[in-house]
Amino acid sequence: MPELRKDPVLGRWVIISTERGKRPSDFGTPPPKRRQGFCPFCPGNEDKTPPEVLAYRDNGSAPNTPGWKVRVVPNKFPALQIEGSLNRRGEGLYDKMNGIGAHEVFIETTDHQLDMSDMEVDHLESILYAYRERMLDLKRDGRFRYILLFKNHGEEAGASLEHSHTQLIATPIVPKRVMEELDGARKYFDLKERCVFCDMVDQELQQGSRLVAQNSGYVSFEFFASRFPFETWVLPREHHTAFETMPVSSLRGLAEVLKETLVRLKRALNAPPYNFLFHTGPLHEPHLDHFHWHIEVLPKLTKVAGFEWGSGFYINPTPPEDAAAYLRQMEIHATQETR
Amino acid sequence: MPELRKDPVLGRWVIISTERGKRPSDFGTPPPKRRQGFCPFCPGNEDKTPPEVLAYRDNGSAPNTPGWKVRVVPNKFPALQIEGSLNRRGEGLYDKMNGIGAHEVFIETTDHQLDMSDMEVDHLESILYAYRERMLDLKRDGRFRYILLFKNHGEEAGASLEHSHTQLIATPIVPKRVMEELDGARKYFDLKERCVFCDMVDQELQQGSRLVAQNSGYVSFEFFASRFPFETWVLPREHHTAFETMPVSSLRGLAEVLKETLVRLKRALNAPPYNFLFHTGPLHEPHLDHFHWHIEVLPKLTKVAGFEWGSGFYINPTPPEDAAAYLRQMEIHATQETR
Repeated sequence: MPELRKDPVLGRWVIISTERGKRPSDFGTPPPKRRQGFCPFCPGNEDKTPPEVLAYRDNGSAPNTPGWKVRVVPNKFPALQIEGSLNRRGEGLYDKMNGIGAHEVFIETTDHQLDMSDMEVDHLESILYAYRERMLDLKRDGRFRYILLFKNHGEEAGASLEHSHTQLIATPIVPKRVMEELDGARKYFDLKERCVFCDMVDQELQQGSRLVAQNSGYVSFEFFASRFPFETWVLPREHHTAFETMPVSSLRGLAEVLKETLVRLKRALNAPPYNFLFHTGPLHEPHLDHFHWHIEVLPKLTKVAGFEWGSGFYINPTPPEDAAAYLRQMEIHATQETR
Repeated sequence: MPELRKDPVLGRWVIISTERGKRPSDFGTPPPKRRQGFCPFCPGNEDKTPPEVLAYRDNGSAPNTPGWKVRVVPNKFPALQIEGSLNRRGEGLYDKMNGIGAHEVFIETTDHQLDMSDMEVDHLESILYAYRERMLDLKRDGRFRYILLFKNHGEEAGASLEHSHTQLIATPIVPKRVMEELDGARKYFDLKERCVFCDMVDQELQQGSRLVAQNSGYVSFEFFASRFPFETWVLPREHHTAFETMPVSSLRGLAEVLKETLVRLKRALNAPPYNFLFHTGPLHEPHLDHFHWHIEVLPKLTKVAGFEWGSGFYINPTPPEDAAAYLRQMEIHATQETR
C-alpha cells in the first residue's frame, strides 16, 4: 500500500510509492534495457494492461480486444491504490495516511508513432471527451477531492512508454499546488471582484504580444511569468471553473487550439519533450467565481537546478514575448499530411 | 537588465534572464560543443573569470593569479545584476521589477577532477569558511533580503561546468519557498512552542531508522517526507537560525558530517548528479525561535513529471528508511585515498 506522508514544515504531502518501488541498490547501476519493439499499448496487446474502464469502439468489438480508437485502463503500476480507507495516523511529530486514489491511463491512439500534435482534430476531440467522461465518473467516488489530468511526452519529461498517452490521478486531498492557485485567485477576486484568469485572457488578447493561437472559444498564450522557456497556457475565453462540466459542444474548439499550440511547439522546438497538465476546480465545487480552469503546457528545455529547488524562483532564459513571436512564425499548414 | 516578473495567481517571482538569454531558435538545434579541455576555473585561467572577490592564498600570490586554494568570483553570466535599483512597476494586471542581486561562484579547488566528497575535511572547512565570509559581506548591502547558497553537481543537476563549485544568489526579496518554510515553522511553533526542526532532530536521533551520519554538533538523515529518493538533510543539533552566524569553531564538525554524507551518497549511487542548498534565515533576522538552518541534499535520480508539476505532490519510489539503511551499509574508510 503506498503511503502519503506530510512534510511537517511545508504541509506538503508526498507519495512514498511501493507498487513502483525502487530498491536503493537499483540506482547505482544502469537501468535494465526495455524489451525492444514491445508496446503494451499497441492493438493486440490488450491483455498486457489491466482491463479497460472505457473504450471508444465503432465496430461492436469486445472489451479488451482490438477495434478501439481510444482506450482507458487503470495504471498497471499505480502511484495510489483504489481500495481501502485513508487511516490517518501519526509517527511522533510526523503525519501519514494510506495512499488511496485512482490512477488511469488514456491510450490515445492505436498508432504507436503518432503523437498528439499529429492527430486529426476529430480524434483529439474524442480524447477530450474521454477525459471528461472519466472525470465525471470518478467524481462520484466520495473519497476523492481532486483529479489531475496530465501528459508526460518524451523520456526527459518522465514518460516511461513512448506510445502516446495521458494519465489522471484522483487524490483524497486537494494538492498543495492547486490550493495555492485557488488561494491566490481568491485574493485577487477579493480585491478586484473579477477573476484573475479572465483578466489575463482580456489583457493577452488586447496586447497580442504573447498570443499563440485562438478561436472563438479558446486562447493560448505564453504565460507572462513563465517558469520555463515556451511555457504556454490554454484557457477558455469565458469564465468556467471546471473542465469536466464544460458543454460537450465546446470540446471541438479546445481540440483545435490545443492542436495548433502543440504543432507550433513541435515545429519551433524540434519535437521537444513536454508535460501538460489541466488545472481544474476541486471536485464538488461546481462553480467558483474566482477560479477558471486552464491547461499549462511545459516544454522540457532547461534543467531545474539548486537555485530553483531552494528558492521556488525560476530562471527563464527566454522572454515569453520572444517565444510567442517565434511560435507565431511557424508554418503549420502542412501538418496534417506530414508525420 | 534581467527582469523579475510576478505570477499574478501564485505571487511567485520568476527571473526573465537576459545575460544568459537564449534566443527562441536556440532550442530547436543541438547545443554547440563546449571547447574541449578548457576550464575557466583551473589555475592559470584566472583572467577568464571576473576579478575575484575573495581568495584564500597561502603564499602571498597576487589576486587573479595562481596560488589560491579557494577562489570566489562574480558569475560571468549572472542571473541578477548587481548595479541599479528595483524600479517596481506594472504592465496592466502584471507586476515586475528590475532583476537586482548578486550572483557569485565559489571555485572550491584547483584540482579539476576532485569533487567535494573527495576533499580533505580541512579543505572542506575552508570552503565553508568562505561561504560564511561572503554571506557576512553581502549582508551589509541593504538591498538584499536573502542569500541562497547552492551546488549543482553534474550536468543532469544543472551544472554547466564540471570543475567543482558552489554558487550563491542574493535576492531583493525573500524567496517564496523560504517564506513557506518560515510560515510553516512558525505555525508549528505557535502550536507547540518548540522549533519543528529541533523536534525532528530529536526524533531522528531517537528513532535511528533514517540516520545517515552524526557527530557532536551535526546530524544528517533521510527526510521523512522526501520528495526524491535519497533526499538527505544536514542540520546542527542545537537550535541556530542562520548559517553565517554560526561560531567559526563549529564549521569543522559540519565539514565532517557533510563529507561523510556526500561520500555515502557517492558510493551508494555511483557518483550521482545532485544539488544541495542551504536554507538559512532571512538576512536581518538574526534570531528566530522557530527557524533552524539546514542543508538539503537532493540526488537527481528520477524525473520530475506532469503530476509533480501540476500538483506539487511528489512520488518517491524509495522509502527513506530503506535509503538510510543502504547508505549506512556503505564502506567509507578508503575514501581519502581513492579517487
